[in-house]
Amino acid sequence: MKFASVSEVLEKLVNEVSIDIEGEVVDIQDAVGRYVYRDYISRVDLPPFDRSAVDGVAARFTDVAGASETSPVLLKLVGRVDVDSSDVTSLSQFEAVLVSTGAPIPSGADVVIPIEYCLIRDNLVYLYRTYPRYSNISFRGEDLRVGDTIVRKGTKLKPWHVAALAASGYDSVEVFRKPRIAVLNTGDEILKGLVPNTTYYLITAYIKEIGGEVSYTKVVPDDIEEISEALRRALQVSDIAIITGGSSVGSRDLAPDAVLKLESSKEIFRGVRIRPGRTASAYLVNGKPVLLISGLPVAAYISLELFLTPILNKAFGSVSEVKPTISGKLVRRLSNEVGFKSFYRVIACRDRGEVVIIPLRLTGSGILSTLIKANAILEVPEDLEGYDEGSEVEVTLIGPLEECSNTSNSETRKSKE
Amino acid sequence: MKFASVSEVLEKLVNEVSIDIEGEVVDIQDAVGRYVYRDYISRVDLPPFDRSAVDGVAARFTDVAGASETSPVLLKLVGRVDVDSSDVTSLSQFEAVLVSTGAPIPSGADVVIPIEYCLIRDNLVYLYRTYPRYSNISFRGEDLRVGDTIVRKGTKLKPWHVAALAASGYDSVEVFRKPRIAVLNTGDEILKGLVPNTTYYLITAYIKEIGGEVSYTKVVPDDIEEISEALRRALQVSDIAIITGGSSVGSRDLAPDAVLKLESSKEIFRGVRIRPGRTASAYLVNGKPVLLISGLPVAAYISLELFLTPILNKAFGSVSEVKPTISGKLVRRLSNEVGFKSFYRVIACRDRGEVVIIPLRLTGSGILSTLIKANAILEVPEDLEGYDEGSEVEVTLIGPLEECSNTSNSETRKSKE
Repeated sequence: MKFASVSEVLEKLVNEVSIDIEGEVVDIQDAVGRYVYRDYISRVDLPPFDRSAVDGVAARFTDVAGASETSPVLLKLVGRVDVDSSDVTSLSQFEAVLVSTGAPIPSGADVVIPIEYCLIRDNLVYLYRTYPRYSNISFRGEDLRVGDTIVRKGTKLKPWHVAALAASGYDSVEVFRKPRIAVLNTGDEILKGLVPNTTYYLITAYIKEIGGEVSYTKVVPDDIEEISEALRRALQVSDIAIITGGSSVGSRDLAPDAVLKLESSKEIFRGVRIRPGRTASAYLVNGKPVLLISGLPVAAYISLELFLTPILNKAFGSVSEVKPTISGKLVRRLSNEVGFKSFYRVIACRDRGEVVIIPLRLTGSGILSTLIKANAILEVPEDLEGYDEGSEVEVTLIGPLEECSNTSNSETRKSKE
Repeated sequence: MKFASVSEVLEKLVNEVSIDIEGEVVDIQDAVGRYVYRDYISRVDLPPFDRSAVDGVAARFTDVAGASETSPVLLKLVGRVDVDSSDVTSLSQFEAVLVSTGAPIPSGADVVIPIEYCLIRDNLVYLYRTYPRYSNISFRGEDLRVGDTIVRKGTKLKPWHVAALAASGYDSVEVFRKPRIAVLNTGDEILKGLVPNTTYYLITAYIKEIGGEVSYTKVVPDDIEEISEALRRALQVSDIAIITGGSSVGSRDLAPDAVLKLESSKEIFRGVRIRPGRTASAYLVNGKPVLLISGLPVAAYISLELFLTPILNKAFGSVSEVKPTISGKLVRRLSNEVGFKSFYRVIACRDRGEVVIIPLRLTGSGILSTLIKANAILEVPEDLEGYDEGSEVEVTLIGPLEECSNTSNSETRKSKE
């Protein structure tokens, strides 16, 4: 069986899979973290009027042009403007107005001198410095103007987007509904309770973490008919289905056959040159993507990261956020099977000021504890035989970065031998 | 007023603030993303027994030691072991057993030869290669052993932690309850609806995003008595209170006085050398932290990032995850007011293969659109006068990284002039 490379299967996946997820309206207070369903433009100018950015004295720039510590300018104080009250709306030559932060600027004024440079005596004010014209004024629409784009379709809403939408008068937002994802775990050993269904918990937690909804779950025996029927039911209520197990290269390669038994089913790719997770496959059934991934937890996690995200990004029209990375020195040689893109679990930690990268010795795709002990993943590209000891490598962090002495792990102690 | 540096105020904050957040029990299925309240150790061995890692033939290593393509070893096939059924439990010399992936290894066997190197003829099997002793066997407890730590108190639960906890028989987990955070926005102009309460939406969305609960909200007039009374009520139902506005250096510096009016109140710091957000202050009221931050959205966001997270980390005993960063070339000079740590909003984007960093021209702390247009923050340390055009700088990403040509922003076009 000749497997394709990651980039080849990702290209196929993105080209051939196109799922349609509708919008739903949520209250603006519940919108953070959701993917917005359409472009939103500002319906207001922000600030809504020209306003003072400081507490101070508003005046005409030409009147205060020469003011300095040693030769202050004297102006007539004709009133006071607060954010909610005003006894002046326009200003003539040699007149000044006391303004508070956020207060509207009276017409005629084109500079505000901060209060600390002003001395007020009854209805006169001494100004002890000048500022360039328009200083300390926030102009109407300088932040957002009617028609400015606040967010584009597919944006994952951050607190500032929510704030800008609210400021623009939106009290609800149309977002993509959560993608509905079915999880079918195949395996008689799981069904009979002989081994814990670890991967089920990993996948369902993963789906929730990325903002999806677990729409259907079932543990299915190693039987083509039963897998096929469970998938048919799952897809009735789901946008995507994930099937674990049943696709090893051994004797019980049932899941691919079960998928292809369904009408309008089609292979996208079968097998991929990654380690762990080489048996990962993808199909379309009635236009809905079905991912077949390993039942072993580490391989399952790597496959979800690689194959689920691009499908959702395409549906939302969105771009993935960059993951946190860090560079450090590899403490021992790491060898790679050329032709496979490999994902090694490593510990990245600070050792006397520098970051070191410690590959975990156990690397089996079933070894869940490698994910628990690791805080980073080191990707080795297909064309490399590995990295030499002492190489500077960049890793993707999946947990916090700590001092090596704080990680309660024998692997880090080994690095100091 | 002599302000302290960020590092000074953070040290004070972490030393003086210590909030007590209880645990609550949640179903394992709802645990992802929560902070675990105690250490959890494995109650089981994983795998629960020695098992085959492949479909193949289990045998004694000494019997298969010489097997090769040209001189296969012939053994007697005495039975078959599946994950859920077995007709053999132990193996004598020159005997072999067919095993499936995950099946228990019969006693006596100490290697498994993958099925693709075996030829079965009735009750005989030819083995065409050998493997080192113990190959293709997953030993009991090799992943997790009874008593191994799965997660330490304060860990933010990831999908693999949930999976390992479930595998270890935990169907519920004790996690820190969500921290209860009150948000009081001061300002007559907000109360009277003259300006939108933008910062309220930013802060409440931020609290939800970091896994907190908004426990109390109120818009309060610019009045010491009223702020004081609202804070007293807020703290009755909250672990932390955030007050916006009312602490400018101008004429209406009300919030600090309002906080200090309450019994058992104490200043932690007042003002900090950051831009934007220099008026940020922190107090303790009956042992509960009260953060006074700017009512301007960008300054408010920077202050939340700096001051809220350390308080929660200390409460949970947890370490922050590293934020995603990227390095790129600054397209124009950026100057800094020495003595202040400054946070500039920038666009980081890919321009013909290299990453460029484009500072936004408008930098006012009220300018929400800078957060909307930016996808990264560039921190300039206190002791620098800025960065020269062309400098390589590292920025913290707050949104996805795109091609410069895709960012619909005039600033990026300017970079190409």
